[in-house]
Order: sequence, then structure tokens, then C-alpha cells
Amino acid sequence: MAKLYVVGFGPGGYEHMTVKAVRAIEGADLIIGYTAYVEMLKAAFPDKIYLSTPMTKEIDRCRLAVEKTMAGLNVALVSSGDSGIYGMAGIVLQVADQIQAPVEIEIVPGVTAASAAAAVLGAPLMHDTALISLSDLMTPLDLIMKRVSCVAQADFVICLYNPKSKKRKDYAAQAAALVMEHRSAQTPVGIVRHAGRDGQQTVITELGKLAEADIDMFSIVIIGNSRTYVKDGKMITPRGYQL
Amino acid sequence: MAKLYVVGFGPGGYEHMTVKAVRAIEGADLIIGYTAYVEMLKAAFPDKIYLSTPMTKEIDRCRLAVEKTMAGLNVALVSSGDSGIYGMAGIVLQVADQIQAPVEIEIVPGVTAASAAAAVLGAPLMHDTALISLSDLMTPLDLIMKRVSCVAQADFVICLYNPKSKKRKDYAAQAAALVMEHRSAQTPVGIVRHAGRDGQQTVITELGKLAEADIDMFSIVIIGNSRTYVKDGKMITPRGYQL
Repeated sequence: MAKLYVVGFGPGGYEHMTVKAVRAIEGADLIIGYTAYVEMLKAAFPDKIYLSTPMTKEIDRCRLAVEKTMAGLNVALVSSGDSGIYGMAGIVLQVADQIQAPVEIEIVPGVTAASAAAAVLGAPLMHDTALISLSDLMTPLDLIMKRVSCVAQADFVICLYNPKSKKRKDYAAQAAALVMEHRSAQTPVGIVRHAGRDGQQTVITELGKLAEADIDMFSIVIIGNSRTYVKDGKMITPRGYQL
Repeated sequence: MAKLYVVGFGPGGYEHMTVKAVRAIEGADLIIGYTAYVEMLKAAFPDKIYLSTPMTKEIDRCRLAVEKTMAGLNVALVSSGDSGIYGMAGIVLQVADQIQAPVEIEIVPGVTAASAAAAVLGAPLMHDTALISLSDLMTPLDLIMKRVSCVAQADFVICLYNPKSKKRKDYAAQAAALVMEHRSAQTPVGIVRHAGRDGQQTVITELGKLAEADIDMFSIVIIGNSRTYVKDGKMITPRGYQL
């Protein structure tokens, strides 16, 4: 029976894909994804058949994936990072349930953007971390900012997904202002653009300067906790071991 | 020049390792890790040379890795999950800095336990998530519980690492009680033991029953947010798309 694999292929570079992701993509009759992700995969898997849909067409993409699987094709529905963290796993399960599709679905986990960015910066995620998306397409802005404020208070490392877009120019600055109510303006902040793939760029700055930093929708922002420090260009959140 | 790779090899099964993790392990002259992790790797890489140290000897393990690299060996310092999330990345950078070791260190990110567990449960991490370790070896219990309380208030999905040990029998129950101050006792909770490796076991229960659940140090506990639901045995946190 045909099967639908929901594949998180990691940050983008072939080397960061899991063995299972590679096998699911190689074994698929059809690979479906958002246009930009499909382009990333074509370099590593040039001979496969791809179908891509634009960014805002998540539900159409999932329906297509389910329907093609029902028609007998083995499908890999791909997204970057981990398909289970702000990825396609949820929508595809919901769509399959809605149309009562008798297809077997397997979620293939991958390296999420937070992990890819952290590896480049040093070791900022050694302690409790909150993952927050600044996209307000699906979430009211006041809930997003309440979350930022709560985790700032409890000294979490904060990892911001989707920190900026054309419509959300100053959300990262708003978030920084809220965190500074509880944390010093000198708190280290790491920004990684295109983490773990071609064009990777890294900046380590300070919370007080985040508002002026160069951030876009391909960036991940990691705000350190009260004990995070920078040494020799590496951002480190200590766990508390006595060296 | 010899190099030290700090490798997160994911949940444990070979298929969940990244291509880069496999290459780093295959190319290493020496693989160093905690005894239980080394045993997991021996099945996939039987012909390599391994050195293992007990669980509480993290600093000794990192020193050994740095010293062996300085002596000219290519070393893979391994841990399960992502080396950058509650992993060895931080300590090894600190140790190398302390002894001013002139070694090149590369952090190889992997699939963290939250991602591995989520993939098995369905799609519980589709929205903002807090990662909290319940181990109080390095962190005061009151700070841990403050963090639980703050993220419960702001309706985060909560992923508990290290939820139990011989000395910490009731911390998960304490955490559940705090979350219930803000969330219904019927909130779905997923527990995955040995996620993504041999012996995997999954239970989906409710927040009000977490205190009686069978949890151990190999478990990951994921507490849903106020909108998380269970359907056909899958735990799903909706993102807000209109189907």
C-alpha cells in the first residue's frame, strides 16, 4: 500500500538530513513541498518528480499529498527543519482525518532550525528554552507577546522562529523590549540566517541592539538567559557544572 | 589537523542519525560517550574504537575528548538527541577554553528527543513550546517549578526532559499540579519511552492522571496546550488553519 511520509529534511544541506529522510525522499514516487524547499532538495535529488505550491497554500498542499497517496503513489511531503515543529505534520493529520482518507502517514522527524542555529553559534541551548514564532498569521499578537514576557520573567533562553516578514517589521524589537524588562541589555543574542545551508550568516549581538539588527524571514534569533555569555566568538549558556 | 566532533546522534536508531553524524562517527579514530550511548552506537558501527565514562563524569569525558584530539586523534564525542540541547556542546567548549586547547571543535546537530517523541505521538508541537528539564542536579527546584508555572500561564505546549529518576520521583506530578492551575485536568499528555529507538513505548493520557503514569529517565513527557486534542490515537496541537 502506498504511504505518505511527512519529512522534515533539516536546515537544507544534504548532510543534515537524517538517513530516514534521505530514504523516504529517494523512495518516493512524488515529492511535494513549498516552492523554496523543493528548490533546496533538487540539488541533492535531481532525478525525482516534484510538485510545489506557494507559501500560503498549506492546506492545498496537504490535500494534494493525501490524494496522491490515495491514488497509489508513495509521497514525501517535505518541509525544512523538523516537520513536527511549526511544520506540516499537524495540518496533514487534520486534512487526512477531515476527508477520512485511508492512508498510512508517517512523520519523519528532522533537525529543527533552533538546533541548526545553535550548533553554529556555540552552545546557547544548554538550559531550558522556549520556542516562539513571531508570525501572527495564526496567533494573536498579544498572545505572542504575553508568551515572550512570561518566559523572559522565568529566565528561559528564547528562540524566535519567523522573526520578521514584510508585514512584521518590528515584532523582534517589541519582543526585545519586553525581555529587557527582566534581563540586561547586554544579554547575548545570536542571529543565524540560512542556518545549516548555503548562504549561512551569523551575527552575535546584544539584546539592546536587536532592534537595529539585520533580520529576515530566513533568520533564527536566540536570546540568551541571564547567565549566557560570549567567549571567543561562541555563545554559551552554562549548565552549572563546576570545571 | 585532528578535529573534535560533538555529535548528537538523535534518538538512537541508525535511521534517525544525520548524514553528517554518520560521517563523523565513521571517520573518527575514537568515539567517546556515556556508557549507555556507546552501547547504542556499537550496533550500527561495530568496528570502531570506543571509550565510555559513567553518567556523572561529563567533565572528565570532555577533557578526555579534548586531550585525545590534541594528541592527534579525530574524536567523535557522542550523545543522544541533539548535542546542543541539554547535550555536551556547552561543557566541551568550556573545557577546551579552560585548558586553552588549540583544537578545532565542530558541533553536529541532531534530532532532539522532543522531535523524536512528537513524531511518534502525532503533531503536538505545532505551536509555541517550552523545553524544561526536571533534573535538579544543576538547577534549583524552585526555579524549575517557576518556569513550569510561567509557561503554563502563557499556554505553551510543555515538553519535559529528564522527568524522573530514583531521587526525583514526584517532580512530574508537582509540575502537573502547577499546570492544572491554568489548564484543564483533561489536557492531553503524551509520554514516550525510548522514543525513536528499540523498545519504544507510547502512552497518551491526561494531565490529571500524569501523577500515576509510568515514567522513567528514558521518557519524554509532552503536555498539550489548551487547544491540543486527541483523535484516532494521535495527539494534535492545531496551528489555527481553517480546513
